[in-house]
Amino acid sequence: MSGSIFGKIFRVTTWGESHGPGLGVVVDGCPAGLPLAASDIQTFLDRRKPGQSPFATARQEADQAEILSGVFEGKTTGTPISLLVRNTDQRSRDYGNLADAYRPGHADYSFETKYGFRDYRGGGRSSGRETLGRVAAGAIACKILEKLNIRIQAYAFSIGPVEIQSFDPDQITRNPFCMPDAQAAQKAREYLEQCKKNQDSAGGVVECTIQNCPPGAGDPVFDKLDADLAKALMSIGAVKAVEIGDGVKVARSCGSQNNDGFHYDAHGSLTKTSNHAGGILGGISDGSQILLRAYIKPTPSISQPQATADKKGENINLQIQGRHDPVIVPRAVVVVESMAALVLADALLCGMSARMEYLEKIWKR
Amino acid sequence: MSGSIFGKIFRVTTWGESHGPGLGVVVDGCPAGLPLAASDIQTFLDRRKPGQSPFATARQEADQAEILSGVFEGKTTGTPISLLVRNTDQRSRDYGNLADAYRPGHADYSFETKYGFRDYRGGGRSSGRETLGRVAAGAIACKILEKLNIRIQAYAFSIGPVEIQSFDPDQITRNPFCMPDAQAAQKAREYLEQCKKNQDSAGGVVECTIQNCPPGAGDPVFDKLDADLAKALMSIGAVKAVEIGDGVKVARSCGSQNNDGFHYDAHGSLTKTSNHAGGILGGISDGSQILLRAYIKPTPSISQPQATADKKGENINLQIQGRHDPVIVPRAVVVVESMAALVLADALLCGMSARMEYLEKIWKR
Amino acid sequence: MSGSIFGKIFRVTTWGESHGPGLGVVVDGCPAGLPLAASDIQTFLDRRKPGQSPFATARQEADQAEILSGVFEGKTTGTPISLLVRNTDQRSRDYGNLADAYRPGHADYSFETKYGFRDYRGGGRSSGRETLGRVAAGAIACKILEKLNIRIQAYAFSIGPVEIQSFDPDQITRNPFCMPDAQAAQKAREYLEQCKKNQDSAGGVVECTIQNCPPGAGDPVFDKLDADLAKALMSIGAVKAVEIGDGVKVARSCGSQNNDGFHYDAHGSLTKTSNHAGGILGGISDGSQILLRAYIKPTPSISQPQATADKKGENINLQIQGRHDPVIVPRAVVVVESMAALVLADALLCGMSARMEYLEKIWKR
Amino acid sequence: MSGSIFGKIFRVTTWGESHGPGLGVVVDGCPAGLPLAASDIQTFLDRRKPGQSPFATARQEADQAEILSGVFEGKTTGTPISLLVRNTDQRSRDYGNLADAYRPGHADYSFETKYGFRDYRGGGRSSGRETLGRVAAGAIACKILEKLNIRIQAYAFSIGPVEIQSFDPDQITRNPFCMPDAQAAQKAREYLEQCKKNQDSAGGVVECTIQNCPPGAGDPVFDKLDADLAKALMSIGAVKAVEIGDGVKVARSCGSQNNDGFHYDAHGSLTKTSNHAGGILGGISDGSQILLRAYIKPTPSISQPQATADKKGENINLQIQGRHDPVIVPRAVVVVESMAALVLADALLCGMSARMEYLEKIWKR
Repeated sequence: MSGSIFGKIFRVTTWGESHGPGLGVVVDGCPAGLPLAASDIQTFLDRRKPGQSPFATARQEADQAEILSGVFEGKTTGTPISLLVRNTDQRSRDYGNLADAYRPGHADYSFETKYGFRDYRGGGRSSGRETLGRVAAGAIACKILEKLNIRIQAYAFSIGPVEIQSFDPDQITRNPFCMPDAQAAQKAREYLEQCKKNQDSAGGVVECTIQNCPPGAGDPVFDKLDADLAKALMSIGAVKAVEIGDGVKVARSCGSQNNDGFHYDAHGSLTKTSNHAGGILGGISDGSQILLRAYIKPTPSISQPQATADKKGENINLQIQGRHDPVIVPRAVVVVESMAALVLADALLCGMSARMEYLEKIWKR
Repeated sequence: MSGSIFGKIFRVTTWGESHGPGLGVVVDGCPAGLPLAASDIQTFLDRRKPGQSPFATARQEADQAEILSGVFEGKTTGTPISLLVRNTDQRSRDYGNLADAYRPGHADYSFETKYGFRDYRGGGRSSGRETLGRVAAGAIACKILEKLNIRIQAYAFSIGPVEIQSFDPDQITRNPFCMPDAQAAQKAREYLEQCKKNQDSAGGVVECTIQNCPPGAGDPVFDKLDADLAKALMSIGAVKAVEIGDGVKVARSCGSQNNDGFHYDAHGSLTKTSNHAGGILGGISDGSQILLRAYIKPTPSISQPQATADKKGENINLQIQGRHDPVIVPRAVVVVESMAALVLADALLCGMSARMEYLEKIWKR
Repeated sequence: MSGSIFGKIFRVTTWGESHGPGLGVVVDGCPAGLPLAASDIQTFLDRRKPGQSPFATARQEADQAEILSGVFEGKTTGTPISLLVRNTDQRSRDYGNLADAYRPGHADYSFETKYGFRDYRGGGRSSGRETLGRVAAGAIACKILEKLNIRIQAYAFSIGPVEIQSFDPDQITRNPFCMPDAQAAQKAREYLEQCKKNQDSAGGVVECTIQNCPPGAGDPVFDKLDADLAKALMSIGAVKAVEIGDGVKVARSCGSQNNDGFHYDAHGSLTKTSNHAGGILGGISDGSQILLRAYIKPTPSISQPQATADKKGENINLQIQGRHDPVIVPRAVVVVESMAALVLADALLCGMSARMEYLEKIWKR
Repeated sequence: MSGSIFGKIFRVTTWGESHGPGLGVVVDGCPAGLPLAASDIQTFLDRRKPGQSPFATARQEADQAEILSGVFEGKTTGTPISLLVRNTDQRSRDYGNLADAYRPGHADYSFETKYGFRDYRGGGRSSGRETLGRVAAGAIACKILEKLNIRIQAYAFSIGPVEIQSFDPDQITRNPFCMPDAQAAQKAREYLEQCKKNQDSAGGVVECTIQNCPPGAGDPVFDKLDADLAKALMSIGAVKAVEIGDGVKVARSCGSQNNDGFHYDAHGSLTKTSNHAGGILGGISDGSQILLRAYIKPTPSISQPQATADKKGENINLQIQGRHDPVIVPRAVVVVESMAALVLADALLCGMSARMEYLEKIWKR
């Protein structure tokens, strides 16, 4: 069955392989009247573009997006928006020797057992390059959220064992790791240099905050905002755990500690006195900051030899060539942000139908 | 928008409130020819039934399920299966004083801002009692999996700070905490007695394993098996984090440690030499054991007074009466198992269309 | 795969068999704050209730609906609304001799080949009694439309060869055929009496109009308003053709005749100078009256002997007992109205997300 | 909300405007292992290509399809198939004077009221050119059906008042009207020449047959095969009525005439003695020929002056320039065939999950 369509109203269909002619996305259900230019998309794509640091793959791709439909005179028309990015630097020859191998940590074996065979060039559809379509669509979702004064921001919370100790948002764009802590970034650099020396790779954590989300987004009982965010983040290739708010820590907490009380301040506006819940209660946004964390595994493609098997029935000693990121966390930052934006934009569109008074506001004559 | 329908082919619609006439579920898309009796459902419902231990709510409910449709002469007919459980011991008077309060850790405020008002009796739709429909549907999904020799098992991995140290499956049903470790269960009991004394509550972790899942389940790139499992688990009221395989630990691991190699054994059958991935690669099951963990927050209803606010604009000191679980982890075990079963049954049904040769096997004349 | 869920935002799941314990429907996605009482549902169910005329089945059913969830203090809460109707007058013994037969014009054979076996009692899920859930849900949809001052009305346009020649809305409820023309009703009565004498049955046409529908409902290119209406009507058991506006006549028309011009009247309001299109252009409502027609086949259950076959491999001469409608057109009127209401309510809910300015109107803070 | 995605398992997303950079489609959910070449798509596109006869628009488009993803070494991989067709002969200047006008019979007004503004160049998304994506996807669906020995064939049943009187399949490709009757084709030519002389346009009927469809396709009660076919056909721009089998005629028929009996022939194989039902009973294919008819309105763009209004509040006398088909029936033939193929391929994929024994056949180990 199809699994490349995401969302209920704001519906995103991504397509494309690492080494095919190109990749892209169709966004169906974007409201009409949103100002949109190719440069809006490009800004986002540039944040995940390869070849920008010694800690990312050396593959050179312009990743230039073309808007093929759905925009007229600078505004979305309400019809499907089709975006196309051509592949230009694919080197399939790098993958010839991998055609039969089941690379450890990769989806070679599982794709092959599912579909009967697989496009072995660069992971095909299971390549990290697949996230390109997500990011292009995420750029549109972020434009919608911007119009509602909602701001999403993701950054690297940790790389390998190196966690941030302070938070300076300006730092995020000043180091190749997207870390909001200059000192941690320096330590991450040292750690990654050691990884490269060891022909090894590192993982890390991406944290994402959503500011100024209005209360009321998310649809119990299955399409809860946190449930859809969990799916969105876990659907990113290398993510193995997702947290909302205090996350794993809640399991050891007590009700009296973990409960967030409500409070009217001196001006009569309601806030919570704490935010262990991470901005979501009962699957619905509560108006406070939403906080997410995605745990990302180390890049499976490492250049040290690995024992594994191939489809011909042989146990082999595999050495992976090619241009691989020693850590994908920094490039995953914009992917996490994009996926969170897709979920939230969709939840807000879905939430428009929550009340009769909203329906009457739009349609009653 | 609607959020009470789960699944793509095996589609489950739950309905019902804590203090309304009843709760239930409609399962649309269950294949025809599955043997199904009311007792199959009852066995599952009994595992989440309240009033069975001093560590669960004292509410007395038979939770007796009636099959209203979709079964003929002991077998499913391929048409929707409707299941109904009547509420019998609702005591709405317990909630009269809560009609205006925003209980800490509950969804009162977020429901009210979303819908404009709320059914305040026992949490209404946001009650834990809502999981009844999930479990009833989960029982059917488990019957399907059984037919394919797939076995799902969940249990309490920890309660508060008490983690299991050993694994004896027979223990799971022998203590009120569903812990596979008798000693840990004893410690959990002591910890919970202290919690009750403190008028407080505890959280914990439910772990779930899936044995003998064939490779090939799960649909990249969005409807990955792990993504759908993450959504399913995170959609359970109190869950704040979800892990697959090594989960949060992967962030600090190296590629060389975290990668699972493939290996042909002496009989030529292919296995993985480790299972850090938790049985899922690229969003598709790889044939090894699937391992999940759900982190559950402490029950928000505690009897000690709490500072909070109400809808009338007042800051109040709230004391919650009623019959509440000091920990919901043991009752959540069967809910986690059910949600995992719903996802897997659906993924297998979806996976039938993955190859032309499967289509020809069913339809070619 | 599941086929008993209808709609995108206003999602309706029907369940139940002719001779099982009962039938019902779950409506997920109804906006909160709609006044709703059991009597609203009952009014609709009473219109399709059997046993009300000599020209309908003599089966006696109260068809009493119980609201099991989703309504609190007389208003919908935004959570799923579950409605249940118990069967009380099923006489399965009538169907014992039909267990093996493939009744002409019925779904016995196709159900059996699809699912491997079938519930043979009264057609099981393929019984006309299945429409009960549609009508119950339609009653809710009509309440929504009423709030927006939209009015749907269906009636019998013809029964057998007898077509209406005049239109008096008051007549619709004054004859057992729901015909807006007293004289035609009298002729229909004579025609049907002849049919009964012949142990035969009749078909007919249900026409449906929608007044005051705002322009802008319907989502090109696939979920066009007319496309969704066509599906809705064709999904009613006995419907074999569906028309919008001039329908089949357009095929012989010329562009210069069939085109509807636009015109500003003296007060500056825009109307169309004709309505061949039936109120829908490009799949979107244009603000003028929507006009639909459903062509209904004669009841397949007739008491004269019929040559057919059974599952045992025998050609047989079948005589059908039981209590069957000689014509279902009058009872189908409220079903057509309900299906049209489901489509339109859903289209209006979907249409709320068509423009950025609508989104900002609901969510911007 | 989004309306450009069609299907449940075989999911088709079309995009593109008449005068934008191009049009295309993404097919998600096509089974892996289907042989597919660009030429398979091209054959279908060539059948709807403009500029091939004096009775079709003179716009010159190569309509060359590029496969951008989802095919590897000549076979589908199970991942999304993206197809792109560039526009090359758009002449937007033709539409400058139409930017403000509400053309009679067109969707200008309804699009504008829905979205707030519209892409006025050539109808934008409401252009008949939109069907290009449907036909490209239909070509893939037909490849699937071919593998199952199912054959779909559409043809013109009538043009204006000229109906076919005989059926010779070889004729279909021998006249520019796709009529299986050479004499009728000649009369149609004369009729259309008169239309052109009158600066007018004509409609007609497309008939479609499906041979060798196995019994069991279609999912009651809403996603019936005939219901989905009705939606599919009615979603084609100019279609105003849809029939299955005897269609409108059933309304005047008697049960004893309209019922199709079953019969075992001398070799013990079961057939129906007639096929008034058009191959579908209870919404499920019954193994006999499926018969559909779509009634198509005359092309709304005619060159004679028409009275209408514009968005500036003026009543105007409109003269439409541009290159328009005097009749679209012949070019709609392949569109009807494609839509029917999309529905049937999807229904067969959905039908794989109808029985437990099918599930076990694929997954049991």
